[in-house]
Amino acid sequence: MNTESSPRPVAVVADGHFYVGPELCRHLATRGFNLVVGNASDELAAELRALGADVEVVHNVHDLADPKNSDLLVERALTTFGRIDSAVMFSGQIVTGRFVNSSLEDLRSVLVGCVEAPYNFMKAVVPKMTPQGEGQVLVITSASAARPTPGAPLYSAARAGASMLVKNVADEVARTGVQVNAVGTNFMDFPAFLKASGATDPEVRAKIESQVPMRRLGTMTEFAAFCMVFLDGSSRFTTGQFVAYAGGWA
Amino acid sequence: MNTESSPRPVAVVADGHFYVGPELCRHLATRGFNLVVGNASDELAAELRALGADVEVVHNVHDLADPKNSDLLVERALTTFGRIDSAVMFSGQIVTGRFVNSSLEDLRSVLVGCVEAPYNFMKAVVPKMTPQGEGQVLVITSASAARPTPGAPLYSAARAGASMLVKNVADEVARTGVQVNAVGTNFMDFPAFLKASGATDPEVRAKIESQVPMRRLGTMTEFAAFCMVFLDGSSRFTTGQFVAYAGGWA
Amino acid sequence: MNTESSPRPVAVVADGHFYVGPELCRHLATRGFNLVVGNASDELAAELRALGADVEVVHNVHDLADPKNSDLLVERALTTFGRIDSAVMFSGQIVTGRFVNSSLEDLRSVLVGCVEAPYNFMKAVVPKMTPQGEGQVLVITSASAARPTPGAPLYSAARAGASMLVKNVADEVARTGVQVNAVGTNFMDFPAFLKASGATDPEVRAKIESQVPMRRLGTMTEFAAFCMVFLDGSSRFTTGQFVAYAGGWA
Amino acid sequence: MNTESSPRPVAVVADGHFYVGPELCRHLATRGFNLVVGNASDELAAELRALGADVEVVHNVHDLADPKNSDLLVERALTTFGRIDSAVMFSGQIVTGRFVNSSLEDLRSVLVGCVEAPYNFMKAVVPKMTPQGEGQVLVITSASAARPTPGAPLYSAARAGASMLVKNVADEVARTGVQVNAVGTNFMDFPAFLKASGATDPEVRAKIESQVPMRRLGTMTEFAAFCMVFLDGSSRFTTGQFVAYAGGWA
Repeated sequence: MNTESSPRPVAVVADGHFYVGPELCRHLATRGFNLVVGNASDELAAELRALGADVEVVHNVHDLADPKNSDLLVERALTTFGRIDSAVMFSGQIVTGRFVNSSLEDLRSVLVGCVEAPYNFMKAVVPKMTPQGEGQVLVITSASAARPTPGAPLYSAARAGASMLVKNVADEVARTGVQVNAVGTNFMDFPAFLKASGATDPEVRAKIESQVPMRRLGTMTEFAAFCMVFLDGSSRFTTGQFVAYAGGWA
Repeated sequence: MNTESSPRPVAVVADGHFYVGPELCRHLATRGFNLVVGNASDELAAELRALGADVEVVHNVHDLADPKNSDLLVERALTTFGRIDSAVMFSGQIVTGRFVNSSLEDLRSVLVGCVEAPYNFMKAVVPKMTPQGEGQVLVITSASAARPTPGAPLYSAARAGASMLVKNVADEVARTGVQVNAVGTNFMDFPAFLKASGATDPEVRAKIESQVPMRRLGTMTEFAAFCMVFLDGSSRFTTGQFVAYAGGWA
Repeated sequence: MNTESSPRPVAVVADGHFYVGPELCRHLATRGFNLVVGNASDELAAELRALGADVEVVHNVHDLADPKNSDLLVERALTTFGRIDSAVMFSGQIVTGRFVNSSLEDLRSVLVGCVEAPYNFMKAVVPKMTPQGEGQVLVITSASAARPTPGAPLYSAARAGASMLVKNVADEVARTGVQVNAVGTNFMDFPAFLKASGATDPEVRAKIESQVPMRRLGTMTEFAAFCMVFLDGSSRFTTGQFVAYAGGWA
Repeated sequence: MNTESSPRPVAVVADGHFYVGPELCRHLATRGFNLVVGNASDELAAELRALGADVEVVHNVHDLADPKNSDLLVERALTTFGRIDSAVMFSGQIVTGRFVNSSLEDLRSVLVGCVEAPYNFMKAVVPKMTPQGEGQVLVITSASAARPTPGAPLYSAARAGASMLVKNVADEVARTGVQVNAVGTNFMDFPAFLKASGATDPEVRAKIESQVPMRRLGTMTEFAAFCMVFLDGSSRFTTGQFVAYAGGWA
């Protein structure tokens, strides 16, 4: 790492507002990263600064299917910090329902959200890392990439496509030292899932948990901790991996 | 099989003009199928009839990314023969080149050709088979679905997405008795490949063959023979499988 | 194929007595093969001869964990027919029960039956095929090779090892033209399974069938038909494949 | 974790003498674990104690194919510390050479070293963890479990069997909260590899590195850091995973 121009490594977290985003930011700040964060609240930014990080917030970049938004994040990182050591994104246009009841529009929507979005992010980030001779990209997808998923066939297919895209990109740039990996979740405990699944009701939650081999939902804190090994620079000799983080479901 | 209304089983071959299409038709006719064939030449139709098949040709359905074309094939089969026992399609928008030099348009193009096209075909065919209590669908994709493919990263990703779509559809309809499988090729000997790869030149061909574990290209005749086990009705107890047909490359 | 010295191709079926063995023999005889068959009854041999095959029976070679038995089969084929075009074996020491209740002896037993047996068979057959420039070996294993199998953890592990052994052997000899593939079953309808699972009782059978995605058991006839594509010489351009034949379970 | 009876979590490192063992111990000690370590030198034990760990060394337990040795490690942990939070082992009887030149004894040797050894370790550890409601087991295997490996076919097969054993065990105990995962390496920089491969010679090393997608060998420090996410208790919602750590080779 070029420690003269950047005494702290620099991470891009594409979305600091939703899902595991805030926890990823906290873990990275704690481990000494400066941060470029999409959509972060003022409260989160203040919290991260209190942890010692320089923080740049890029607003209104929720939609990573628009390639401008990844470009904005990357540009901000380069103009502010001069480099990007680690970059992490998640995306996901969840489309549920049976295949036989689905439409071509459903498929297109899920391909845009689940394949185009990570493509755009990797396309913006990876070429900035390869000249550095190292860099870590983590694409957070879904465990449904790894097994057929009743009730979400199009989503599972799109996620599998994204996983294989990650593997191809990893393969292409491996010789530069840049790592590109994917982690796919299911059964995570966060407000949007609880609401969408009805798991705010304890009985519904118990039923969902009974379907998870580990018999519980995963927390954002432990999931962000898991992601760190692909982002924090401590381990640079694996790439092109997909790991399921889903309580043993995949 | 309802042998009263249809003494011969009925197969839909989406494209009888290109790639393995003519050979698939010949094998199916030989095994006693009546055929609905997209884009077949008059010569092929005559040859198939000479083999004993009733043959319906649907013209100008090359582009399976247009859902109308799969619908046309299916409608013709139902109006002419009253049922569909087997259905096979191949597709493929090949986009080559490195990821870092690719564009979002490249990605969209390959997703349309490699994911939307099989989606459309399965969407047209599968719901007509499920009430029958049996039926065989084969989606011919690429061995690049099964491993990262240097020089074709977007294509490999799209093919992986299509493979997982096949598995999901298979899973969803398994209880009806309908089978949906995929076979993925690489290193096949056919005019478009020879021309595109320069393998019309014997030296170039020798170089390409040296990259194939089996040290040769595959023929359309043997590949069509392979496909039969997923189409000819002789074996109905496997579904959701992907098999590579690529000389040991995947 | 050297059609001068051997007007009919020659297949070795390691066990013509159990499981899919008799049906494999019938399919191969029908397709024009001469046969070397382990453990075949006089009735089966007569039936195969009536189908036009020359048949050599090798008695008392049930236990393929003993390398002598594979050697005996191969020697008989070479002395009688001078070559081996296709060879198929199945094996399987089923050990069930939970991991936490298992013993090292259980593990050893399953490794002998499920890894050593196919090793011995491939070791006997493959080196005789490679000088020919072609040859087809099919190892019939279990679909449990492809997914964790509650109640049969050691068995699933051993089967996965055998599958990977097949892939490695295939890879090593691909350049010679010899093919080595594997097919893995589950939920097959045959007397030993019906008895062991209690499925001779219709209620028990219905319960088992409800666990199969395709909602039925597979028959030996259709499974043998499936195996033919890896054995009958019609298609020689894929190797190192594992296909599950298990009603969609894997 | 029951922090009253055990203020520091307890890890078992089966071999603190070889390969990644010493680095695993250092990482675990740094993260606050007390340790039971097989075969550790006095120097390592002193170093770990200086990091704040209580350390128990169990001598002469190199051979994990002998089930007594895993039992000894577990017993020592329970008698000294009363519990085991994390446990990690590696093993490996490397047998190289072509399949066609191999012997049944080679196969048996590799099955003992690569399947029986992890079986014994999991068998000793897992049942002690399940009543706790949590616990982390990491089995370090080889990236050759994930792809055919020219020159090491039996080894690759045995490693694949061990990987599937890990997945089965993980599946069986997931509901208890205990996690069982596997990481498989290749192309690691350690004295035994350098010597065995001839990579102590810089020219040979350069040639080997050119075969690694990432164009270098991996270090024990970064590999141990990678393992921590499966051992240090920070993330408890994934199990049954296999991750390759091999510079992009698998």
